[in-house]
Order: sequence, then structure tokens, then C-alpha cells
Amino acid sequence: MTRKPKCQTHEEVMFYDTDAGGVVHNIAYLRFVEKARTLLGSKLGLSLKEMSQSGLYAVVTRTEIDYIKPAVLGDRLTIEGRLEDVGRVRFSCAFEIYRDSDKAKMVTSRQELAMVQMPEGRPARLPVHFKKYRAS
Amino acid sequence: MTRKPKCQTHEEVMFYDTDAGGVVHNIAYLRFVEKARTLLGSKLGLSLKEMSQSGLYAVVTRTEIDYIKPAVLGDRLTIEGRLEDVGRVRFSCAFEIYRDSDKAKMVTSRQELAMVQMPEGRPARLPVHFKKYRAS
Amino acid sequence: MTRKPKCQTHEEVMFYDTDAGGVVHNIAYLRFVEKARTLLGSKLGLSLKEMSQSGLYAVVTRTEIDYIKPAVLGDRLTIEGRLEDVGRVRFSCAFEIYRDSDKAKMVTSRQELAMVQMPEGRPARLPVHFKKYRAS
Amino acid sequence: MTRKPKCQTHEEVMFYDTDAGGVVHNIAYLRFVEKARTLLGSKLGLSLKEMSQSGLYAVVTRTEIDYIKPAVLGDRLTIEGRLEDVGRVRFSCAFEIYRDSDKAKMVTSRQELAMVQMPEGRPARLPVHFKKYRAS
Repeated sequence: MTRKPKCQTHEEVMFYDTDAGGVVHNIAYLRFVEKARTLLGSKLGLSLKEMSQSGLYAVVTRTEIDYIKPAVLGDRLTIEGRLEDVGRVRFSCAFEIYRDSDKAKMVTSRQELAMVQMPEGRPARLPVHFKKYRAS
Repeated sequence: MTRKPKCQTHEEVMFYDTDAGGVVHNIAYLRFVEKARTLLGSKLGLSLKEMSQSGLYAVVTRTEIDYIKPAVLGDRLTIEGRLEDVGRVRFSCAFEIYRDSDKAKMVTSRQELAMVQMPEGRPARLPVHFKKYRAS
Repeated sequence: MTRKPKCQTHEEVMFYDTDAGGVVHNIAYLRFVEKARTLLGSKLGLSLKEMSQSGLYAVVTRTEIDYIKPAVLGDRLTIEGRLEDVGRVRFSCAFEIYRDSDKAKMVTSRQELAMVQMPEGRPARLPVHFKKYRAS
Repeated sequence: MTRKPKCQTHEEVMFYDTDAGGVVHNIAYLRFVEKARTLLGSKLGLSLKEMSQSGLYAVVTRTEIDYIKPAVLGDRLTIEGRLEDVGRVRFSCAFEIYRDSDKAKMVTSRQELAMVQMPEGRPARLPVHFKKYRAS
């Protein structure tokens, strides 16, 4: 089995990421995860450009997010993503968000994805090159 | 000249509308305005369904927003929109956001729109029925 | 055990809820769920005003979202929420998003919440009136 | 008069930045501008950390955005910001968003800001070091 791709993105918490509770809002963490997954996807041959050209899109079928510690305005965060499990028609990615100042784990997330041929919206198999990431 | 269409929408300020400053974030007001304009558009024969079927879209070419008083978590707001000026290829809409509890004016906004034929992205004239809203 | 509170909210899919894939974006569904949970919270004595006054906030510790069918521009959606399980320091809510035109189930979601005393961020017990919702 | 501070940020257009029209949504451009202004603010001694410590916040009182060309999924954009005019109680910033591939100007924006002492919300003078940016 080939080593599974990983990715790393960085965010600085902006006002628009926070809410009146003084902490980063749930919705902002999902945006951070979406950006990290996009980068991870490009390492899997699923870049935005490639998908919009082929019409073969990886669509998220499930998201899980655990909020462990609250990030605040001005925090610098690192989002680490990795390909997790690979099946025939689905795969999953795992994400962890750390605070740069003390490496505290703030959030973990997991997403399941399936391939869909657009614009028909027809389910499709994973591209053949995913085979190398499958546990034998 | 026919009476110009108006619209009214309502929002209750949610956590995700606020920021760590304790007030509604700039971006949230624009979302409120976008929703009001969508409703106003449907009164102008430019509903989401009509535009996605005809491919003739009203696109915003300019937005102005003045932030007068800050709304806070839990505030109930009313957004009043109206068709303002109508030209041959452009029209404009004006919006005012009021706090329900005391009718205070919180935000004013103005948007200019032009018609575009999609997917070519070609500029198009306003639909002929807009003529009745034009100052003679 | 007292009947558990339910809530119902309504959304019309706006341009800003959709993405270039032509469907509602993951992030928009979470915003719909957040609004529904806010309404459900107000039926549980956890309104935005009550929480900002007491400083006792219900914070989401986990979100799960399953995307079943994709909603599109102009769809009218109903979000049904209900209090699910109630423990001593945590409770959970379940949400289902339906398309009004054919009652198709589009999305399901589940959130776990815990009470936190702000601004200290200290974990707190559920308000005593939650006892009536606890399975005996 | 001292040379006025400038800033530059970069964005890659994500799915969540686009809408069903296939282009970047108005709201996303405002988020890009907000991030650029935050960076510009930190060059003006108005970083998120400094403002949350002093309670002296620069608040946006007016936003103008002109949408010139539509950006699409996967576009790489550069946002250039600069301090524009400086008065005694207000200042303004100007922003231009370019597409990296051909340097096309996509969007221009302008924001006016005033200083407010929080949590009282009392208007305040610009910090004294702004004097050097004022036209004499």
C-alpha cells in the first residue's frame, strides 16, 4: 500500500470567524476543513480544475466535527488532513486543527466522500489510481 | 410610471451573524441584503427559478453599505427593499435595515444590477416590462 | 417523562447557499441547522437573550451531518429539529431537512451540546428543568 | 507625509466561494476584502490582538464594492490593499482584486473606518501615529 497523501493548511482567526461568544463559530471550522480537503483532493488528482473539466466530482456524504477547545480572535491555526480509508465507491479523510502557539488540538473532523458524475448526478467508482491506497 | 415594487424580509440575529466585537458582522448584513434583493427580484419577474430557466440573470455590479448602528445577538431586524432607478441596461435597488424594538435605522445599502445572458456572460437589455418603472 | 420539544424552520435556497456544482454547499446546511437549533434552544429556556444575560451557554461539542440528496437553487426546505437524549451534563438534538415539493429527506444532522459558564468557560450542569426530559 | 502602508493577500477560489451561477458570490469578495483589511490594519498598529487588548477598535462605517469581471472556481486571486485618506476621526482603505493568470482586475472596493472605544461604543480619535499619513 502506497503512503497516503496528507495536507496542511494555515488559518489566522479573523473577526468573521468568531461570534459574540468570543470564540470561533462552528461554521468557520467547517470552512477551514473544506479548504484543507480541497488541497488534499488536489493531491489525489481531484483538483477543482480537474473536477470541473471531467465532471467527475468527489462529493461529501458525511461530516463529523468534534469541538475540543475554542479558538479565539487572532489565533493562528494549522489544519492537518490525511486520506483515511479507501473503499471501492467511497473514501474518507480525517482532519485535526491545532493552535500554533501551544500545539493544542482544538478540533477534529472526519468526512466521507463518494464520486459523482455531473451533471447527471450518477454515482461513479473511485478513479483507478485510488487502488494503491486501499488496504489489501 | 407604475408604482415601483417593494419588499420586506425579517431576520433574527443568530450567533453566526455576530463577531467577537459583540455585534453583527459586515458580511452578515450583505447576506441579509442579498436575501431581500432575491425577494424583490421575484416581484420583478427575476425569481431564482425564472432566471435559472431563461439563463437571463440580474447580476450585481456594485454594492454600497453604510453601517449606522450595530445590531446585536437576538435583535429582530426588518429589511425593506425597493426598486430605485431603472435605465435601459441597468437598474438599482435601495435597502434599509431597521431594528424592530425601536425602529432604529441600522444599515442602508444600495445595489446596481445589470442583465447578463448566461452561460455566455453576454450583457443584455432589461426585460421589456421594466419600461413601466422608468421615469419618463 | 415530559414530551420533548421540537422545532421547525423554513429556508428558501438562495444563490449564496449554492456552489458552482449547482447544489447547496455543505456549509449552508450547517447554517440551517444552527438556526433550527437556536429556535429549539429557545424552547428549552436557552434563548440567545437568556444565555447572554446569564452567561450560561449551551455549546456544541459535536456535529454530524449526512448529505442524502442535493438541494438546488430555489428549493424550499423545512428543517425539523428535536431534543434527542438528555444526560446530566450533555444533551443532543437531531435534525432532518426535507424538500417541501416532495417531502424528500435531503439531510440529517445530530449535535451534542454541553453547558458552559462564560466568560470563565467552566463546564456546568444542565439547568434543573432538563430533568423532566431525561429517560428514567 | 510618510509613505502609506499597503498589503497583499492571496486567495484560491473554493467551492464555498462560488454560487450556482458558476462564479464567485458577492459575499465571498467581501470576505476577501475583510481579510486584506485585517492585514492592512496590523500594519497600522490595529492588529486583532492589539485591538482586543486596548478595546480601541477600527470599525467599518461604509463599504463600496464594484464587480468588474467574475472569478470562477480554482482561480487564484491577489488582493491589494492600501491606506487611502486619513482624517481626524476617519480613514479609508482601497482594495483591488486581480486574477493571477492574466492580471485582470476583477473587483475594486473601498471602505471607510472610524475608531470606537469598546465596550462603551464611544467614538474615538485616530491613534496619534496616523498623523504622519495625513495630507498636509
